[in-house]
Amino acid sequence: MTVKSKKALILAGSRGIGKAITNSLGQIPSYDALGLSSKDLDTSDINKCMEICDLYPNGVDVLVLNTGGPPAKPFSEISIEDWNKFHNQLFLGFALILQKMKINDNGFIFLISSYNIKEPDPNLILSNTYRIASTSLLKSLSPQFAEKEITCINIASGPMDTDRFNELSSDPIAAGKGFPMQRVGKPAEIGDFVASIVEKNISYLSGATINFDGAISRGIF
Amino acid sequence: MTVKSKKALILAGSRGIGKAITNSLGQIPSYDALGLSSKDLDTSDINKCMEICDLYPNGVDVLVLNTGGPPAKPFSEISIEDWNKFHNQLFLGFALILQKMKINDNGFIFLISSYNIKEPDPNLILSNTYRIASTSLLKSLSPQFAEKEITCINIASGPMDTDRFNELSSDPIAAGKGFPMQRVGKPAEIGDFVASIVEKNISYLSGATINFDGAISRGIF
Amino acid sequence: MTVKSKKALILAGSRGIGKAITNSLGQIPSYDALGLSSKDLDTSDINKCMEICDLYPNGVDVLVLNTGGPPAKPFSEISIEDWNKFHNQLFLGFALILQKMKINDNGFIFLISSYNIKEPDPNLILSNTYRIASTSLLKSLSPQFAEKEITCINIASGPMDTDRFNELSSDPIAAGKGFPMQRVGKPAEIGDFVASIVEKNISYLSGATINFDGAISRGIF
Amino acid sequence: MTVKSKKALILAGSRGIGKAITNSLGQIPSYDALGLSSKDLDTSDINKCMEICDLYPNGVDVLVLNTGGPPAKPFSEISIEDWNKFHNQLFLGFALILQKMKINDNGFIFLISSYNIKEPDPNLILSNTYRIASTSLLKSLSPQFAEKEITCINIASGPMDTDRFNELSSDPIAAGKGFPMQRVGKPAEIGDFVASIVEKNISYLSGATINFDGAISRGIF
Repeated sequence: MTVKSKKALILAGSRGIGKAITNSLGQIPSYDALGLSSKDLDTSDINKCMEICDLYPNGVDVLVLNTGGPPAKPFSEISIEDWNKFHNQLFLGFALILQKMKINDNGFIFLISSYNIKEPDPNLILSNTYRIASTSLLKSLSPQFAEKEITCINIASGPMDTDRFNELSSDPIAAGKGFPMQRVGKPAEIGDFVASIVEKNISYLSGATINFDGAISRGIF
Repeated sequence: MTVKSKKALILAGSRGIGKAITNSLGQIPSYDALGLSSKDLDTSDINKCMEICDLYPNGVDVLVLNTGGPPAKPFSEISIEDWNKFHNQLFLGFALILQKMKINDNGFIFLISSYNIKEPDPNLILSNTYRIASTSLLKSLSPQFAEKEITCINIASGPMDTDRFNELSSDPIAAGKGFPMQRVGKPAEIGDFVASIVEKNISYLSGATINFDGAISRGIF
Repeated sequence: MTVKSKKALILAGSRGIGKAITNSLGQIPSYDALGLSSKDLDTSDINKCMEICDLYPNGVDVLVLNTGGPPAKPFSEISIEDWNKFHNQLFLGFALILQKMKINDNGFIFLISSYNIKEPDPNLILSNTYRIASTSLLKSLSPQFAEKEITCINIASGPMDTDRFNELSSDPIAAGKGFPMQRVGKPAEIGDFVASIVEKNISYLSGATINFDGAISRGIF
Repeated sequence: MTVKSKKALILAGSRGIGKAITNSLGQIPSYDALGLSSKDLDTSDINKCMEICDLYPNGVDVLVLNTGGPPAKPFSEISIEDWNKFHNQLFLGFALILQKMKINDNGFIFLISSYNIKEPDPNLILSNTYRIASTSLLKSLSPQFAEKEITCINIASGPMDTDRFNELSSDPIAAGKGFPMQRVGKPAEIGDFVASIVEKNISYLSGATINFDGAISRGIF
């Protein structure tokens, strides 16, 4: 029997992409993969973000920063409460966790963001703005983490077969057909991708933002 | 005598880059250019941001979103108060003004950001993260503003000969010598640039983020 | 009478965007602006590119690298002759001119490229690939030119009201209506932009690639 | 015994990164991985590029476009012969192979490029310009390949522990120490990465350019 000597912590890890990552990481023999639900931790609750760090005094080896998406809202209807809530949920909560959580040497930090960081969607301004802020944060920190052999990777996810996508899209199957691959992505593709990087210790990917969108984005990079 | 039929409002317009823009816009005969000082409006004061919009019921023709920079701080020393203050000052204040301020048709919105939006500086995380959030916001809104012939332009400024640069750099003259042009930029270059665009109505620049850094940034774009 | 002490050379300067730049630069009192036609210089003719440099032994103060666009062709139909011809016309000719032409200190080099450098158009592969190569070249050279106070600027033009656009588009007026500004760009906007930068000596723009596409491109930068 | 029903073809696959990819792909039970040496195929030889396609009438399932790097040369010393040779080797040869080679449905195309596509190195202009041209080509084609479930991925490699790096760097060990991870990358990291994507069929990565440079690049993306 393999000792589960390594710990992976996946935020928003009980559904959708987060759950798929939890599942895939859990299949690595040496890993104990813990997917927190949004009940366990709602990252818009700043105090909770800091408390959670105390639960892992021995640190974690893999940290996956993930969260549900904010609602689609016309710009004019976004309230101050919305701005502040999603500032917390999509950015500040992650920043505080990165300040306080012990990440073990040779570990990995993954941010699950969105392809709208590169090509902002006018209907998803809360998502666009705070996810790109988190992207900038992780990039800013990556050289410093690199000194401890900790690898930072940002996955800019496109439309995935999740409850989230099915809510945002009026006709998700038709929407999928319109994409270059004639389908949305499978959460397991991201799960397998993350687990492969961890299992094979592909640490030189540090600092990368990786589009994961089935050739939808038009940008050359 | 030319009637000053157009109004330009420049936030943080009493010093540095903002003052230079105010000066240059003020030389366009038809323009009344009003540079607000940080006493007139501190964009970290959310209520003040909304009140200021009421002072211009006839709208403005040019709006320059500008603000002083946050302090350089190691990541570990950034407090929750810092995060929230600069979230307001560098992002939320601008967002609220964009929601409420009347911008006249055929007008211009300029955001003065920083070259650290593209190449984040590990010592300026507060600046990196919230300025890129504002960049994403302006880009998200640019197609919608374009429908009213309002042009959105983001200027990603490099080191400029301002009090700000002289504070951040231990030896600003030596620092300037190390740059490709062997100097920092002159605020008047940005002022003249903005005024030329407005005066000649070069509106097809809408949506652009323009590096203004004397060939310092390494990125191809 | 002002002495025309400065010389601007505009390739493909007798039509479209190039002609507009020639016109605008020609209105600066100290400038003699010479727009070459494609008969004067076809940049796909490598020998001619080198010969032309000998005509300006005293150097030029502004050089505008511009050329007509290649045809839209499906990838499968691009012949070796096409690849080589447009390699010369859109890239190698410019490279050789940059190697040989004397650019006077404090001068300007403009490259007129296309917004397809950032968001490649599957139907314009010859244009996408060689224009981005030229972009990379100019960026690579910009720090070296900066040492002589020579400013390099790349203008990534979107659809403009030129013969070229009218040929590529089956219904150019309808196409324009579909854009965020409900119109294509005016060549004079680029002409005025270039002339303003030169006249006001806004040299700290060096190294920039500037989108000029009326908010069409979706990329955040 | 597993039938080797799938074929992977790796250009420049006998040394360095290419060899590592050949090794890793060869460990997938169903794959026959064939690494061509530069003697088997020098992609600067256009005729050879086309002939090679005829050797695989049943198509390949994985194609890795890889080639040795061009020499570091000051811009002024690059000859017309250099431009043309490396145009062929780093770009045109790949384009012709992509036009002619049969890639089986559900296959993968990898381009091994360089981090200098995003941050051009003034001393490596031949590499910068033609590798970014190939990047643009692959991106242009990715939606079209996606229709046949063929996935296109570009790996923008940073400094790797290869003969190439050891030639370019006067003191490779010291150079490695100066990087954020205090080392260069291991070719096996890229090999394992490519093989994981293929083996687990992570096809929704299509269209991505993935930095593989140990947090060296400064760009946010």
